[in-house]
Amino acid sequence: MTKPRVVILGGGFGGMAAARALGKDADVTVVDRHNFQTFLPLLYQVATAGLAADHVAYPIRGALRAFDGKFRMGSPIEIDHKNKTVKLDSSEVLPFDHLIVALGSVTADFGTPGVEEFSLGMKSVHEALKIRAEVMRRFEDLCRFEDETRFGIAVVGGGPTGVEMAGALAELVRGPLMNDQKHAASHMDISLIEAGPRLLPMFSPILSERTKVSLEKLGVKVLVNTSVKQVKPRKISLGDGTVLPSEITVWAAGVKGSPALEYLSLPLDGNRLKVDASLEVTNYPNIWGIGDLAGAKGSDGKFLPMVAPVAMQQGRFIAAQILRKIKGTELKEFRYKDKGSMATIGRHKAVVEVNKIRFSGYPAWATWLFLHLFYLMGGRNRIGTVADWLWNYFTFDRGNRHIMDSV
Amino acid sequence: MTKPRVVILGGGFGGMAAARALGKDADVTVVDRHNFQTFLPLLYQVATAGLAADHVAYPIRGALRAFDGKFRMGSPIEIDHKNKTVKLDSSEVLPFDHLIVALGSVTADFGTPGVEEFSLGMKSVHEALKIRAEVMRRFEDLCRFEDETRFGIAVVGGGPTGVEMAGALAELVRGPLMNDQKHAASHMDISLIEAGPRLLPMFSPILSERTKVSLEKLGVKVLVNTSVKQVKPRKISLGDGTVLPSEITVWAAGVKGSPALEYLSLPLDGNRLKVDASLEVTNYPNIWGIGDLAGAKGSDGKFLPMVAPVAMQQGRFIAAQILRKIKGTELKEFRYKDKGSMATIGRHKAVVEVNKIRFSGYPAWATWLFLHLFYLMGGRNRIGTVADWLWNYFTFDRGNRHIMDSV
Repeated sequence: MTKPRVVILGGGFGGMAAARALGKDADVTVVDRHNFQTFLPLLYQVATAGLAADHVAYPIRGALRAFDGKFRMGSPIEIDHKNKTVKLDSSEVLPFDHLIVALGSVTADFGTPGVEEFSLGMKSVHEALKIRAEVMRRFEDLCRFEDETRFGIAVVGGGPTGVEMAGALAELVRGPLMNDQKHAASHMDISLIEAGPRLLPMFSPILSERTKVSLEKLGVKVLVNTSVKQVKPRKISLGDGTVLPSEITVWAAGVKGSPALEYLSLPLDGNRLKVDASLEVTNYPNIWGIGDLAGAKGSDGKFLPMVAPVAMQQGRFIAAQILRKIKGTELKEFRYKDKGSMATIGRHKAVVEVNKIRFSGYPAWATWLFLHLFYLMGGRNRIGTVADWLWNYFTFDRGNRHIMDSV
Repeated sequence: MTKPRVVILGGGFGGMAAARALGKDADVTVVDRHNFQTFLPLLYQVATAGLAADHVAYPIRGALRAFDGKFRMGSPIEIDHKNKTVKLDSSEVLPFDHLIVALGSVTADFGTPGVEEFSLGMKSVHEALKIRAEVMRRFEDLCRFEDETRFGIAVVGGGPTGVEMAGALAELVRGPLMNDQKHAASHMDISLIEAGPRLLPMFSPILSERTKVSLEKLGVKVLVNTSVKQVKPRKISLGDGTVLPSEITVWAAGVKGSPALEYLSLPLDGNRLKVDASLEVTNYPNIWGIGDLAGAKGSDGKFLPMVAPVAMQQGRFIAAQILRKIKGTELKEFRYKDKGSMATIGRHKAVVEVNKIRFSGYPAWATWLFLHLFYLMGGRNRIGTVADWLWNYFTFDRGNRHIMDSV
């Protein structure tokens, strides 16, 4: 029996989980515009100088070696349903028996003017390095003239990304930058803006409140019930007509399915890819949708959250589903197992919620640390340069093969 | 007694050695266009994906904390000798009692056309990341179409930088890239071009020969007695009229004193800063020149080599010299202590020459490794992410505060 040719569009959490789960059972080709997978949950630490950029990236080809998976760097531009091929921007045409669409998400501005021009997103290593560079450059500007000029950084969006970013920025400013130059660091203001009534709306209200208190203790100005009308150069117009000075605006208010979806002429459900409960694209047999861009719904009839655990579970599910289809076995329906949510705020400060179990503070922070270390275990990312050196030495490999000079 | 105000232009090996040696004895301000010091000897490992970019950089402010040194990000544009001030491109004017010019060097093209437009230098993290990105991007291009297209990378310059770069590229291609995609990797050609009759001319001929043999064993095509007439897109015109295909040309043929020197209207000796044996700029009391751009001479009457040990010894010397001058003690003459040269070629392959002692192979490689680890010890660069994390945790600091998004 020849192996089914499975083309996976997108080498993120979903796509790579599917590739790994298919393994040697299929002839897998992963397509991504980067030659590395980005560990998005730790991007905020790159943006705040805590982690080396190279250590939140992992070469896709490295992950595919175990089962001779193929990789193509590029973006899909067209699907030919008659000939069952997908065309890439390199003009290459890839034939497939099954196609997995796992293109992920991009920053959503919800129609707010100025977001694209005057704010920085949090969706790629390049963006994280840009935030780091901007923060440090402005800090150096403040160091130059020791006057009363203040400098504002605003993070928009009170979900986990915004909370983690605001907390890490506050710790950067209060710790290292304060030690570097006290006057400048004490003239930097960090705000976190949330349109809804509380931070981390997916958590229970008590954890939202604890998060707010923790951030305020770190010196973050938390503005809830505050909408952003427009992002402008060096300031933000708020919904109530006031203006917040913001030399750097980090936009972490939300994401939407990748715009690449538009080129592919597949059916949409809202702005997500329309999929059946089997995760097959509605009316397009052998084309599957997973992760942030797929419109899979939970038991409550709402779209599943755009988070890594959904994508990873769907990736593994879809691999089994494709093998079922090939064998002629009946397809199953995808059910998301919500293993809980967590967000870290700073040193010894985090919140964790698993079903009815909620905790915060040191135990939550230790749990967060352990799970992130555990998830990174797949790569050689935690052990840094000595690891790089020892690893290069013993495996005859080099781990940092990432193209990072452009978006 | 008030401390002398010492402004140090350049935060490289020389400038930072001077700053550290002055320490609390002076009111030190370091000026650099980057907010980090670059560990240049390991840049070739960043270019060849062996090391994370963040781990060959070290925040200058971090190094200055111990003695409350100041830092200004920027470049000097003018010295006012009457008022004893130096003006920066930020318009800031820094007063000084002593000025140390330690601006280092830039890539020298020796008038060869096309070097600036069509080759990549090896003088900054940004350039190293560009080489890495280009090599990996071209590799991905080759992976796309499995035909007989070959792909050439040429390294120009047979000094230590060129030798180390060519060796590391060969190991990258023969190891990791071969494991990624054999067909593509086996279609990549690496050449090393040297105008003189042998590689590593500062070493004894026997080590030059061993280096050549080692590189050839790694698959590098070594061309000696070969001059470069012009660098063009995708090829190099050689002195003998032939053309070498080269999709990526890395220019490691030499360096020259920083062009910033021209703005400063200080006396020149050739294209270096004219300094007395005391390292004071000739006829400019209290202005000192060290490192690659300073025209200090050895006992043979020739300029000292543009290498880190010279700059570091001069940095420490100049600190003592300034303190002597302040006390009214007689100035000394700088003498360079040549502690030998080394270059690494690849795994277990290096050459070391200390006076009459020469060795190569495994012992040389082990020596190289030990000394580079030892020199990196000052930073927190070797221990990578786990170190980053533990270090952030115990020191309340963040180590990667580098602005790296632009040249």
